[in-house]
Amino acid sequence: MQIETIRHSLAHILAQAVQEINPKVKLGMGPAIENGFYYDFEMSFVPEDLARIEKKMKELIKQNITFQKKLISKSEAEKLFKEQPYKLELINELKGKITIYQGGKFVDLCKGPHVKSTKEINPESFRLNKIAGAYWKGSEKNQMLTRIYGLAFKDKKELNLCLQKEAEAEKRDHRTLGQKLGLFLFDEEVGAGLPIWKPKGTILRQIIRDYLHKELSSQGYQWVTSPHIGKLDLWKTSGHWNHYRENMYSPIQIDQEQYMLKPMNCPFSVKVYKSEIRSYKDLPIKYAELGTVYRYERSGVLHGLTRVRGFTQDDAHIICTPEQLSKEIENLLRFSFRILKTFGFKNYDIYLSTRPEKYAGSLKDWEKATNVLKYALQELKLKWQIDQGGGVFYGPKIDIKIKDSLGRPWQCTTIQTDFNLTERFDISYINEKGKKQKPFMIHRAILGSLERFIGVLLEHYAGSLPFWLSPEQIWVIPLGQKHEKYAKEIGKTLENSNFRTKVKDENETVSKKIREGEIQKIPYLLVVGDKEMKAKTVRIRERGKGDTGEIKINKFIEKIKK
Amino acid sequence: MQIETIRHSLAHILAQAVQEINPKVKLGMGPAIENGFYYDFEMSFVPEDLARIEKKMKELIKQNITFQKKLISKSEAEKLFKEQPYKLELINELKGKITIYQGGKFVDLCKGPHVKSTKEINPESFRLNKIAGAYWKGSEKNQMLTRIYGLAFKDKKELNLCLQKEAEAEKRDHRTLGQKLGLFLFDEEVGAGLPIWKPKGTILRQIIRDYLHKELSSQGYQWVTSPHIGKLDLWKTSGHWNHYRENMYSPIQIDQEQYMLKPMNCPFSVKVYKSEIRSYKDLPIKYAELGTVYRYERSGVLHGLTRVRGFTQDDAHIICTPEQLSKEIENLLRFSFRILKTFGFKNYDIYLSTRPEKYAGSLKDWEKATNVLKYALQELKLKWQIDQGGGVFYGPKIDIKIKDSLGRPWQCTTIQTDFNLTERFDISYINEKGKKQKPFMIHRAILGSLERFIGVLLEHYAGSLPFWLSPEQIWVIPLGQKHEKYAKEIGKTLENSNFRTKVKDENETVSKKIREGEIQKIPYLLVVGDKEMKAKTVRIRERGKGDTGEIKINKFIEKIKK
Repeated sequence: MQIETIRHSLAHILAQAVQEINPKVKLGMGPAIENGFYYDFEMSFVPEDLARIEKKMKELIKQNITFQKKLISKSEAEKLFKEQPYKLELINELKGKITIYQGGKFVDLCKGPHVKSTKEINPESFRLNKIAGAYWKGSEKNQMLTRIYGLAFKDKKELNLCLQKEAEAEKRDHRTLGQKLGLFLFDEEVGAGLPIWKPKGTILRQIIRDYLHKELSSQGYQWVTSPHIGKLDLWKTSGHWNHYRENMYSPIQIDQEQYMLKPMNCPFSVKVYKSEIRSYKDLPIKYAELGTVYRYERSGVLHGLTRVRGFTQDDAHIICTPEQLSKEIENLLRFSFRILKTFGFKNYDIYLSTRPEKYAGSLKDWEKATNVLKYALQELKLKWQIDQGGGVFYGPKIDIKIKDSLGRPWQCTTIQTDFNLTERFDISYINEKGKKQKPFMIHRAILGSLERFIGVLLEHYAGSLPFWLSPEQIWVIPLGQKHEKYAKEIGKTLENSNFRTKVKDENETVSKKIREGEIQKIPYLLVVGDKEMKAKTVRIRERGKGDTGEIKINKFIEKIKK
Repeated sequence: MQIETIRHSLAHILAQAVQEINPKVKLGMGPAIENGFYYDFEMSFVPEDLARIEKKMKELIKQNITFQKKLISKSEAEKLFKEQPYKLELINELKGKITIYQGGKFVDLCKGPHVKSTKEINPESFRLNKIAGAYWKGSEKNQMLTRIYGLAFKDKKELNLCLQKEAEAEKRDHRTLGQKLGLFLFDEEVGAGLPIWKPKGTILRQIIRDYLHKELSSQGYQWVTSPHIGKLDLWKTSGHWNHYRENMYSPIQIDQEQYMLKPMNCPFSVKVYKSEIRSYKDLPIKYAELGTVYRYERSGVLHGLTRVRGFTQDDAHIICTPEQLSKEIENLLRFSFRILKTFGFKNYDIYLSTRPEKYAGSLKDWEKATNVLKYALQELKLKWQIDQGGGVFYGPKIDIKIKDSLGRPWQCTTIQTDFNLTERFDISYINEKGKKQKPFMIHRAILGSLERFIGVLLEHYAGSLPFWLSPEQIWVIPLGQKHEKYAKEIGKTLENSNFRTKVKDENETVSKKIREGEIQKIPYLLVVGDKEMKAKTVRIRERGKGDTGEIKINKFIEKIKK
């Protein structure tokens, strides 16, 4: 028996169980999904309901209910489901005979397939695990229903493995960690998908910003700064209005003009390029910007920091001669891997995304650029896959998905060729022969966005960020009031060595401070009392290791400077 | 004779002169203004036209034309001005008898007063100096006319003094300097009042950002980061929708909600404050943000960087106990003066701005906060003036206008009390008695905005930014190709000492490079040839001083490190 069929049948049994509890419940849809199934109901539930429903499902399964497929006419179906408005809506959209499945007293509109009898289902190998809101047919314009999710596997062992994995992922959930570590917040009144960064989160952003600044400057990047809105005309010229409108927000009216929140930074970099006459000797020109862009995402798909409506890209635009393109792509790939490794990511899935249905430019340009990307991947002897039709409207791209410590892939780096903007904004350089020539343009982001990348970092490290990324690196905890002065001296010494240090001199117990430091995943907690004061030492509690002994402060600084 | 009357009569003579050149010209309005007069015409001019018109005006003046006031009926006026649609529009708005002035063959709709005869005008004491576009009645909805400006004074000496001042101000015009120094650009297609910062401008912003970061962090400020849009609901809660709407842009529709571009950063800082329970022991809490805000300005008042539609405030919000308020205001004043002095501003006009017509909060709160501000100003023994009704809707404020090297005042620092947001967002802290209490809130910006402040810096220094603020501090210029290697070594040495250095090894003449360096106001140009290479020295050309001799590179580094 296919596990998908069992999952699908469990969805029916779930609906049947809920209907037995509340015969008037209005039913939505209930398919099999990865790892399990769900069913949507017009009814509210509390988490405690799940156990009760699960129990009812097990009873039903033990009744060895058989599933019977029937073909009925549309009018019969309408009569059968007259109390079920969502089913009626679906029936209305169908043509010809209607397939239904009957299992015991329960009938559902369904194409199947199903198990023959609930005998085939192991009642110990499924678990109802989640309640969530879901719009009917996934559209915000429709009624919000309640979705009950279940996990289902062929046996209990597989189920437990999945439950373990989910528990691990939950511990690593960056949304929970973000709150616990005091990094960021979301606020209903501000709006969904719009994170506000608290002081510690802002420090983390600044550490990443400063690191990127150093790395990129050493690679000859120049930084630019652009506004968050631009005239609709600009986006018409750039092609975004034509090809990217569904990701853009509604216009803002200023005097007689319409302005758009920027979904991308590119047109502004183009304007900087165009503000001077460029020679082949100036190329490649690399403009970098930590640009905050705004893109529409349906509220249903928003997820913590990894799917937001406003985010700061580590964006760059490289403008080069046709001859330089291939080399630049190779450099970029190498550079990206180096940056990602610094953050601790060493496993990747690499994709070459080709022409989408909606595209700008000529087929010849697409082919040429795709070949350049392929060539670079081959030169670097990388393993990669084709993502057919996954390119952006303006050109093919290479995407790097980084794999976190649970093996989950996350889209981060993207290297995109563009022969659309250079054309549309008519940008040029003076070549060796003194003639105007069209350059090539590369868009690229290495981390992708600060938001998504920080989300991934938190999940990858389960919140225990590497020392260099920790917003607070060291807490100094005095054992008693008389050790506060010494604790402050230690704090000062550490700060002078540029370590982000906090002296915990609040009126709390030492054990409470240590516990708090552990929750906040501070890399080093230094406890100081009489003994340490006398010996000019500190007692180290290292994150994940506990007490690692007493040490002279200068030795400690040497140790952490490594 | 009042100079305003002479200026007004000159406006008429200007119109008459233009009409004699082009009898069909459509006339707008022509008042006296500060330092002179203008007249609007539906006609295009080139700068060369001004001399011709000026000559014609002088001829008219010498004819000793007398100005005669007449009262005529509306219908007579309509007949008289039947070829002048703008005049007809004005006549249509008037009631009762219409006043006209006749001077020679020229008649204008005008209330006067005028000189009796052009005999009273010194033909050597005026000058036509500018052509600009101007909407009829100042509204973007109307026809764009051409405005001719003139300067006029009682004698030639005063005129020349003004011309000198204007020339000096023009040399210091940050819009011209910004382009010359390659700092920023404005682009028609992007939109008015929305600067794009080029690489050198972005470096300048980063220098200021990093300086502020260091200074503010040492004062216990914490940094936060907030989005550029927020739900309309947020702005309703904050009171901006009620009291500040005319400065806000039109809403953006996202799903079922309306969102606004932020005109201020405050509500987001409030959300960060509210995300945790705060104790009196935590206060004062100081949240800083370089937050980019968007505010409506009419297109007519936009001016380079000093009047824009999107700008980055060096914003902060200080939340403190009522007891701390006075001390915090004093600290802020002292801190602001220190920061401003570092940038080279030592003269100020200080204003205490009181309750405006449109305000939130109780009269008692306003009085209390105004007294706290007064007290702080007195404690610091500062000279200050009252700006009656100049406060923001949420509380009184202290404004510091810095004076530039030409003595012109520029609004920069603002320290604003707020008892509105604390109330509206219901924020609190736990006081010594374990009870909830309402804190006080201060909004403050020291530079005001990066845009305006950089504009002022450029005008103050006429582009010759202090060494520490110069995006490019040193150029190393090799005399010939064989000195390039040595130039690069010098460049490397300087970069290793953290000086922003450029080695000018382009294929250009040395004199062209030096000229270019002077135009770009580079603080030090180091020229190296055979002699310098051999002696391990550099030849210095210091900005504003010329050649200041040969020096060992380490001596040079010592010198500039001071």
